[in-house]
Amino acid sequence: MNDSVGIVKTEYAQFDTQLRLESGRLLGPLTLAYETYGTLNTERDNVILVTHAWTGDAHAAGVHSKEDRRPGWWDNMIGPGKVLDTDRYFVICSNTIGSCKGSTGPTSINPRNGRPYRLQFPVVMVRDMIHAQKLLIDRLGVTSLQSVVGGSMGAMQALEWGIHYPEMVRSIVPIAGTGRTSPMAIALNNLARQAIYNDPLWKKGNYRPEHPPADGLALARAVGHISFLSDASMHLKFGRRFSVRDGMFDLFGKFEVERYLDYNGGNFVGLFDTNSFIYLAKALDLYDVAWTFDSLQEALSYLRCPSLWFAFSSDWLYPPNQTEEVVEELEKQKKPVEYHLIESAYGHDSFLVEPEKFIPLLDTFLRKI
Amino acid sequence: MNDSVGIVKTEYAQFDTQLRLESGRLLGPLTLAYETYGTLNTERDNVILVTHAWTGDAHAAGVHSKEDRRPGWWDNMIGPGKVLDTDRYFVICSNTIGSCKGSTGPTSINPRNGRPYRLQFPVVMVRDMIHAQKLLIDRLGVTSLQSVVGGSMGAMQALEWGIHYPEMVRSIVPIAGTGRTSPMAIALNNLARQAIYNDPLWKKGNYRPEHPPADGLALARAVGHISFLSDASMHLKFGRRFSVRDGMFDLFGKFEVERYLDYNGGNFVGLFDTNSFIYLAKALDLYDVAWTFDSLQEALSYLRCPSLWFAFSSDWLYPPNQTEEVVEELEKQKKPVEYHLIESAYGHDSFLVEPEKFIPLLDTFLRKI
Repeated sequence: MNDSVGIVKTEYAQFDTQLRLESGRLLGPLTLAYETYGTLNTERDNVILVTHAWTGDAHAAGVHSKEDRRPGWWDNMIGPGKVLDTDRYFVICSNTIGSCKGSTGPTSINPRNGRPYRLQFPVVMVRDMIHAQKLLIDRLGVTSLQSVVGGSMGAMQALEWGIHYPEMVRSIVPIAGTGRTSPMAIALNNLARQAIYNDPLWKKGNYRPEHPPADGLALARAVGHISFLSDASMHLKFGRRFSVRDGMFDLFGKFEVERYLDYNGGNFVGLFDTNSFIYLAKALDLYDVAWTFDSLQEALSYLRCPSLWFAFSSDWLYPPNQTEEVVEELEKQKKPVEYHLIESAYGHDSFLVEPEKFIPLLDTFLRKI
Repeated sequence: MNDSVGIVKTEYAQFDTQLRLESGRLLGPLTLAYETYGTLNTERDNVILVTHAWTGDAHAAGVHSKEDRRPGWWDNMIGPGKVLDTDRYFVICSNTIGSCKGSTGPTSINPRNGRPYRLQFPVVMVRDMIHAQKLLIDRLGVTSLQSVVGGSMGAMQALEWGIHYPEMVRSIVPIAGTGRTSPMAIALNNLARQAIYNDPLWKKGNYRPEHPPADGLALARAVGHISFLSDASMHLKFGRRFSVRDGMFDLFGKFEVERYLDYNGGNFVGLFDTNSFIYLAKALDLYDVAWTFDSLQEALSYLRCPSLWFAFSSDWLYPPNQTEEVVEELEKQKKPVEYHLIESAYGHDSFLVEPEKFIPLLDTFLRKI
């Protein structure tokens, strides 16, 4: 594995501060989980910040031990000789606030009462996530980001970075993103939330960690899985195949696509905190780059750096026309902007499943920055 | 209301028979709820059979009393002077078996034990529905159908009628249909089912009718609502408007689209039986016109009559390419076939919301039969 960053360790940065959130509430002290790959150069200007999606974490590349068989979530993108080349770049990925993967979120201890926040945790927006990340970037002594690169919720973060820290960001690469979450995406998140609320084990967020609302969370995750896939990718993967173990006329018999959803939904339960899932869904729903601005136009006017955008033809969660709305406005404002619509059958998940389709374009772009 | 069929009454036909289902199981005796509009002519050849969708019923037109403010579900299509002109045609609509609107289904009494079938009800396919309807058509003394017209699950029934009773059917009009349910549609139905199964009040189908699994059924219906709408129609209807009654940073605050889904999901609970909902979802999932045939090609080779097909540009539940797959095969086989892709923003629901977009085309077609 010459192209792996090898064994890496998640670090935890503590910030004895009170972050003023978009809601007006204060959050602190803060912990941010993060990983870095590669070496910061003496000019401190070879930094690429990678921003993760909804259920992602700081572990974007490498493995956590020799025995670890599951590399980080974007390992095919980050490493020596890869597009986010750790021989050239110092790559940083941090877990967002509101998540449950090491950064401050609903599972963290509320310093006011010594108990986990749970639903006492304040609603956070994507913008709050990047302000928290900024604390980490400062702590690491970094004053300039060569690029901020991320997919889905990561794309939202990249755009927010470009707009709110224009003096610091030299380029952004939002992939499979949107300028504002559509009512369709909100509606799907509503299903997911409701699935959790309906589970009696949820207990208004006061479930015991060892007894989470498993059925509700599994169903919520299944909603997500459907929205990340596409009709075409489901045809490729499952077609109309019926489970060989079930009778077709058994009311509870399952098609393979159902088995997949059930299995992966169930698996997710041990991997993610239910309240964090809800808070991050809320952050996604509230996302609108024009928040606190008069308009999309005004918000985008603050972006100075070159931006590279990818959308995927079969993505129906954040469909191409949503990226194009932003790109067209940037073009109107004569900003340096590059956009590629990538043909892919893998829906929203394409940014994870078929990175080879956009890696060469990303490589060319980054070399020009 | 000169163009209304006026006050109508649902009739109930009893059949002391055992219908052999596709599963091999027997179902009987049978009750079929139905309504008719217009007058059967002496040649008995002016009949149009209207077939309903998932949660539809026999009440397609008119009102049930003078005070009744809600006309039948396709009242804008059926009546004197309307496209399904009751001055010319004798229009029949019957509730499908498996439903809960008067025809034999899970809420009916199982004659073997004198108790409601509930989950003892056999799994039925769309094909079983039309075989049951055939009993009714025979009972009414009708030997020829000028057309079978229906949307969604009604389109499936129309196609089945054309293939399995070619000697009787002179035309079919499947609207917003498919030749076989896609894995995406199955996946969405899986969410709906799971939402119900997760509700402790469901009790494996043994809920008391007065205490149905309301939360589960409401959520299941919300899944349906999303799949019947489109991104475009949601933008038109809700945009990103936030409920004026909620705080934006309230974790439980809702966007208008969420309020719509919650409200309509909740409303549905009093209107439909949960087990019937599950059985009909199963029938939809199992739908494949090629069932018992070697192929789609072979199945369609049995269709003799002219067929008129409508698909809607924004329908992502049964998207146009699924109708086109069937239409193209019919064209290959030199069958008389006419197809129109209707531009509409209203998704799958377009066949109910914007009938004016296809009524003139349907009218021209029917006059030629």
